[in-house]
Amino acid sequence: MTSPTSTDIRAAVLQLSVTADKSANIAIAVKRIQLAKSNGCTLAVLPECFTTPYDNALFRKYAEIIPDGETCKALSQAAKSNKMYVVGGSIPELCDNKVYNTCTVWDPNGNLIAKHRKVHLFDVNIPGSTCFKESNAMSPGNTLNTFQMGTLKVGLGICHDMRFSEMAALYQKQGCDLLIYPGAFCTELGPPHWSLLIRFRALENQTFVIAASPARDTKSSYVAWGHSMVVDPWGKIVEEANEKDMDLYVDLDFTLRENIKRQIPTGTQRRTDIYDTIDVKNTK
Amino acid sequence: MTSPTSTDIRAAVLQLSVTADKSANIAIAVKRIQLAKSNGCTLAVLPECFTTPYDNALFRKYAEIIPDGETCKALSQAAKSNKMYVVGGSIPELCDNKVYNTCTVWDPNGNLIAKHRKVHLFDVNIPGSTCFKESNAMSPGNTLNTFQMGTLKVGLGICHDMRFSEMAALYQKQGCDLLIYPGAFCTELGPPHWSLLIRFRALENQTFVIAASPARDTKSSYVAWGHSMVVDPWGKIVEEANEKDMDLYVDLDFTLRENIKRQIPTGTQRRTDIYDTIDVKNTK
Repeated sequence: MTSPTSTDIRAAVLQLSVTADKSANIAIAVKRIQLAKSNGCTLAVLPECFTTPYDNALFRKYAEIIPDGETCKALSQAAKSNKMYVVGGSIPELCDNKVYNTCTVWDPNGNLIAKHRKVHLFDVNIPGSTCFKESNAMSPGNTLNTFQMGTLKVGLGICHDMRFSEMAALYQKQGCDLLIYPGAFCTELGPPHWSLLIRFRALENQTFVIAASPARDTKSSYVAWGHSMVVDPWGKIVEEANEKDMDLYVDLDFTLRENIKRQIPTGTQRRTDIYDTIDVKNTK
Repeated sequence: MTSPTSTDIRAAVLQLSVTADKSANIAIAVKRIQLAKSNGCTLAVLPECFTTPYDNALFRKYAEIIPDGETCKALSQAAKSNKMYVVGGSIPELCDNKVYNTCTVWDPNGNLIAKHRKVHLFDVNIPGSTCFKESNAMSPGNTLNTFQMGTLKVGLGICHDMRFSEMAALYQKQGCDLLIYPGAFCTELGPPHWSLLIRFRALENQTFVIAASPARDTKSSYVAWGHSMVVDPWGKIVEEANEKDMDLYVDLDFTLRENIKRQIPTGTQRRTDIYDTIDVKNTK
């Protein structure tokens, strides 16, 4: 089993095309995880809603129970057979008759080690451009979620979650080294905000950030921006996809993170005598 | 007296050259404020440390008492005679034998209506590049500070302060429409971080942001990046200076801010059942 130290992560970001055929989407994901393994990766990250078109009318139809559904079984097997960590982008999760936008994380033994339900649903209304109300079809998650990958701690968010600094700040306080955001920004909000948000999350929290988008399908009712990327703790884009179906393989050097934390020690320079970010549920 | 409504701000960002001659620096600032007035501006923003070279060995020598010092008298008079709001970048302030990096704000009657002492001092250590320990010469401020400009509320920060989301988040909670950061990033940290930070502050808080830098002087021991800018609540750069001695005149349309807040309502989408930013001093 792979047990990463703090300097040996090779990550795959799989910018998959998503079709209306759920089983085909899953099969492609499994194939690309295997390909990532053959390229030396120990971590594979899938996009948001990689099993279903991003469409309120379809989420319930494509939803499944975690961990017994079709997608989960396939991801568990793919993680186990390739001895990799797999961050399963997100799928519509059915639970107690509600539907969640949920990320599952699988360890190299095929165990489900984390689950993140999208906390901030994508409700925006830009006249003449993107109008979407995800909360019409989905329920929000109510917890933040991390997992351990060897010595590294990873914080999870999905798409719109990345707009909220306090969520990332709590992950920073919990000692996360890496933040992973499966996401599917649209072609209107992608150009002004996608890289700005991801780069800033990395800079502010002095973590690596991986953001995984589906490939762009201009025939879809919701057209994803693509441009999956990996950003280093300096806010620099290490690798960026274009809009096409493609994978990124990126070596993450966590000694860089330690150097940056020493050079600009914003973590210890915070003025917690003036302000603080609190975990409401765990603060008395 | 100018009493701006929420849609009629024309702001001047004065990217001044700073010399070793304090009185000459002040005289230039006064002249440029006057020029801004003649160009229809109701607000002028000066850069960080516009009266002194940015040098730990000089701050105490150039420091003055607020509001009775030479710079304050000149800015008060300039605000009054031009009927403008003047955000006086920053000057080294002498108080109780300590030196602070302090921004003064003057209303169109020449009254001092706000004062912000830099809360986060610039202590960084990037081997082979920028090493600076502002805290060797300066003391930090301990409060956040806002002022009212007609119907608009403005939050103040100085340079390194802009790296800290919680400070901006508290200004957002206080209802600020505009954030102003006089700053003097160096030529190493300017390219990777200056516009990223400013644009993100604007996007995240859905405010306008004005950042005012000194012009670049390559003969100085600390070489400022320049690139003063005004960014809108979408994270878009409205106007950006290059590195030279120059002024920006920018119309700020606050109806844009209202539209953006409606379109992507991150202000109301925050999950304060999970996290929150607290004002430590005013939270029991």
